[in-house]
Amino acid sequence: MAESRIMSSRNLDFLLNEWLDVEALTRRARYAEHDRETFDGLLELSERIATDMFAPMARALDVDEPHVGEDGKVVLLPGVADALAAYNEAGFPSLGFDAEHGGAQVPFTLQQASSIWFQAASVGVSAYPSLAKGNAHLILTHGTAEQAATYATPVIEGRWYGTMCLSEPQAGSSLTDITTRAVRQEDGSYRLTGTKMWISAGDHELGENIVHLVLAKTPGAPAGVKGISLFIVPKLLPDADGAPGERNDVSLVGLNHKMGFRGTTNTLLNFGEGFATPGGQAGAVGFLVGDEHHGLSYMFHMMNAARIGVGAGAVALGYTGYLHALDYAKTRTQGRALDDKDPASPPVAIIEHADVRRMLLASKSYVEGGLALVLYCARLVDEAATAPEEADRDRARRLLEVLTPVVKAWPSQWCLAANDLAIQVHGGYGYTRDYPVEQFYRDNRLNPIHEGTNGIQGLDLLGRKVVADGGAGLALLAETIGATIARARTAGGDAASYADALEGALGRIGEVTAIAWADRDPAVALANATAYLEAAGHVVVAWIWLEQLLVAGEQDGAFYAGKRAAARYFFTYELPTVAPKLDLVAACDRTTIDLDVDAL
Amino acid sequence: MAESRIMSSRNLDFLLNEWLDVEALTRRARYAEHDRETFDGLLELSERIATDMFAPMARALDVDEPHVGEDGKVVLLPGVADALAAYNEAGFPSLGFDAEHGGAQVPFTLQQASSIWFQAASVGVSAYPSLAKGNAHLILTHGTAEQAATYATPVIEGRWYGTMCLSEPQAGSSLTDITTRAVRQEDGSYRLTGTKMWISAGDHELGENIVHLVLAKTPGAPAGVKGISLFIVPKLLPDADGAPGERNDVSLVGLNHKMGFRGTTNTLLNFGEGFATPGGQAGAVGFLVGDEHHGLSYMFHMMNAARIGVGAGAVALGYTGYLHALDYAKTRTQGRALDDKDPASPPVAIIEHADVRRMLLASKSYVEGGLALVLYCARLVDEAATAPEEADRDRARRLLEVLTPVVKAWPSQWCLAANDLAIQVHGGYGYTRDYPVEQFYRDNRLNPIHEGTNGIQGLDLLGRKVVADGGAGLALLAETIGATIARARTAGGDAASYADALEGALGRIGEVTAIAWADRDPAVALANATAYLEAAGHVVVAWIWLEQLLVAGEQDGAFYAGKRAAARYFFTYELPTVAPKLDLVAACDRTTIDLDVDAL
Repeated sequence: MAESRIMSSRNLDFLLNEWLDVEALTRRARYAEHDRETFDGLLELSERIATDMFAPMARALDVDEPHVGEDGKVVLLPGVADALAAYNEAGFPSLGFDAEHGGAQVPFTLQQASSIWFQAASVGVSAYPSLAKGNAHLILTHGTAEQAATYATPVIEGRWYGTMCLSEPQAGSSLTDITTRAVRQEDGSYRLTGTKMWISAGDHELGENIVHLVLAKTPGAPAGVKGISLFIVPKLLPDADGAPGERNDVSLVGLNHKMGFRGTTNTLLNFGEGFATPGGQAGAVGFLVGDEHHGLSYMFHMMNAARIGVGAGAVALGYTGYLHALDYAKTRTQGRALDDKDPASPPVAIIEHADVRRMLLASKSYVEGGLALVLYCARLVDEAATAPEEADRDRARRLLEVLTPVVKAWPSQWCLAANDLAIQVHGGYGYTRDYPVEQFYRDNRLNPIHEGTNGIQGLDLLGRKVVADGGAGLALLAETIGATIARARTAGGDAASYADALEGALGRIGEVTAIAWADRDPAVALANATAYLEAAGHVVVAWIWLEQLLVAGEQDGAFYAGKRAAARYFFTYELPTVAPKLDLVAACDRTTIDLDVDAL
Repeated sequence: MAESRIMSSRNLDFLLNEWLDVEALTRRARYAEHDRETFDGLLELSERIATDMFAPMARALDVDEPHVGEDGKVVLLPGVADALAAYNEAGFPSLGFDAEHGGAQVPFTLQQASSIWFQAASVGVSAYPSLAKGNAHLILTHGTAEQAATYATPVIEGRWYGTMCLSEPQAGSSLTDITTRAVRQEDGSYRLTGTKMWISAGDHELGENIVHLVLAKTPGAPAGVKGISLFIVPKLLPDADGAPGERNDVSLVGLNHKMGFRGTTNTLLNFGEGFATPGGQAGAVGFLVGDEHHGLSYMFHMMNAARIGVGAGAVALGYTGYLHALDYAKTRTQGRALDDKDPASPPVAIIEHADVRRMLLASKSYVEGGLALVLYCARLVDEAATAPEEADRDRARRLLEVLTPVVKAWPSQWCLAANDLAIQVHGGYGYTRDYPVEQFYRDNRLNPIHEGTNGIQGLDLLGRKVVADGGAGLALLAETIGATIARARTAGGDAASYADALEGALGRIGEVTAIAWADRDPAVALANATAYLEAAGHVVVAWIWLEQLLVAGEQDGAFYAGKRAAARYFFTYELPTVAPKLDLVAACDRTTIDLDVDAL
């Protein structure tokens, strides 16, 4: 079997250049050093390093997952360090950062497109630099200049890594209940004690140091999330020159052994339990970021990008699974056409069977729809940051707010479904570990869980995003989708009839949102927030498909025919499924509320 | 964490006794030796051995899967042999067989209920005796008396095991294309050469011998499935006394390494490649079952039972996953009620959150709906075999024919969905291998693939079962469901309003079946066979839930309240989803047919 492509450069080109016109960004001061050529070069380099260095690690890390050696250090296959050395040497860690911090000032949209290659090749390896990037961004945004120089610069240079330490064993999604404590010392530093759970990349030997960003509560802080502060807690305390020095009191309790995503260490960490005695005293040394009690809001500034990143990871895994299934379906022969009753005729490629085509078209609509949504949202991040007019920046910010739960949850659900279909297309072979599709499924199964479960995204969308500012977010989304509908009507043909269907579904979303909140009992309004999120997600992606269809138009060639076929699939098979979900929300159905849990 | 129950004895009791009245079977001659007490005793014993001996092997076999030792023999954890020794000693292998063959003549419904316990405890271990049972049944039905005595009796006594060898590497679902050859010898035996793939329990050392039932073609046989014959090919050839003797020319090429279901060896077997030389000559010695060229029809006689068995396995894994998720949701605390804004208040059990309740109710409706469907079909098997009137036997047979694709595919899809929800209820913990729910998912992922993929079940339902005999099968199903609808109307209340919804959906199935076949182009009619199967499955299970609701009535107690809540869930959340699927079939949608595959 020939190696399957891991991602489609043709489609990335279509989305970035034919649809999102990323070249327009080079006319803005921040990106003026770039042009179409540097963008293309970045993506080609991403493809090459991802294919050559990252992809070979995917299965290897699944079989030979990280473990803790006798010396208490994490042991990772050497290929991970090699892959990251190539990645770092090419300058990828610096992509998005300001030039003044050694960054390349690449637009977020291009960063996202680049990272899709690495996620598709080995989601486990790609997580290390990705987490470090988020960490450095946060320090640059909310930390002091000294903190930036000490803790962000080495990350931008690809020498250090970083983590986000939010969850605790007793408090996964509920940050209100974290109990890690931080006590201020005379020198202005803090000492932290507590236990953090699910910390990805929480320990390893890939770089010179690891910068933990830790949520903790100071004594006497207000109860709940308003009492949470944010601290930098380096694994090794920098010496006077900023070089990694004394071991901080942060210890690895253990690695979590996961269903998939095994290449990224996922850790339980103890802070301040006396593993080390920095300055002669137990307690993890931490440095406050910004002001006390504002930690969660700092962390939430990163959340939009983090949630786009989760959606992107889900797309990457779904997409690579789809490409593998497509190759398999084109080469594997079995069975005959329904009207061929001659057993002596040669079997056909399974792609000739309608149900295999259905599975592939469904997958294509999910992964290309998801990728387009992710890049659209990334483009909004760039607009929010660099559009010349404040009104445009504000509009992008508000649209991004309402789309964030969708871009996190929709690909997590549907690109995972594409991975499931990729197994099914492979039949019995797909169920074996000789083919990669079962691993893609296992790797992707994390995405509906982390960075806020999809259930929490539903509450965020229906409980906050569409009702904030008197429903301004939803109105803005409807206006934006409405503009596409108007263009589709002008275009005529299939686009015009899809526009009618989309307008109907969009109008229904507005209606049921009003009905859900009409009696103002949040328990009833939100009881079916997941159904609402799923319906809204499908409406958004239908819109994204209509956008792609309008760009494809009647252009010749298999690529554009594929866009038309997938759009047709999505509007024919998928959009109609939103009706019963929205009916459920509109009925303010109380099935789950009325339930006596003893009856389960 | 306390050990979760693996299955619900209370619900089995409800279904078997309060609904299906299995005691009535004891009034038939074949089952006259049994009474309610022996049935209850059988289930209690099943629960005990499954819980004590099988359940501990589930995770152990996943971690430490079977492998081939240096001597070429399969190495299995010793606990498997211990579990099967207890199972065999208790007489389980003999349950369904005739007394004249040493069997206990237990009704199929009770066999199925018993086996659910073992499948839920360790699907990997349970497959060995289950495959052997099917093998012996087939030999008893189609073989000679001598073949029965030689090859079935040792299986019934729990000493030998058996397999079904259908697929080949190049021919998974397409048996037309098998190439294994069988050449008749002067002594009336045959010599077989060829390679068989996906042979579950194809090699191991658990018993004294393994009886392979092998599909092969004789020289000059008609092309296609009409040229297929069936052979007994023992691993060890019986000597004059029937004891396992000389090694046959059947060799283990390798074990397939699977995503889940790892406890059951799944093998690639070579027949007749010269691994051994029985009688001084290479070639696997085989014995014809019945007549040449009828092999597939003999095999298909077992298919209904095998497909109920797949559905049952899917139910068992989904059910045990649901029970684990339920226990977790009742004990894990996190978050607060939506109207509780006091961060100092204690967190609530996650079962208090509406979305967790939704996931649990959905799972309950899937696994209890699936279990009821499986036992209903098993009861039809008993009716078909033992109903006093031929008209009733015929009716049961015909109903079973039309329900078979549903009972295979629906639990494979929806009880797998329950396993997915069990992971989600567990959050990050569910994604770790410290909790069993991720394994249940992996184990269950096989079921939509084997014994005819779910895509093939759709073709079977829409292409054969509902159109055979001028649509008599569908008419019979509609009549049967109609009787329940009439009773529900009489009962009034929720049941009456559910009856209306069910009647509407059922009527729509009839309409779209007629529309699909109106123009008689099978390619168009069958293009959306999967959507049809999914819709039909939901209608059937809605009916099964209405049946359960009618039995539960207004009876007091949490158990009956649970039946009412799950029925409400299914009719509110699930049944409405069939409408867009049936619209697709009715539209004779050509999206997949019109597709140019180069566009993918």
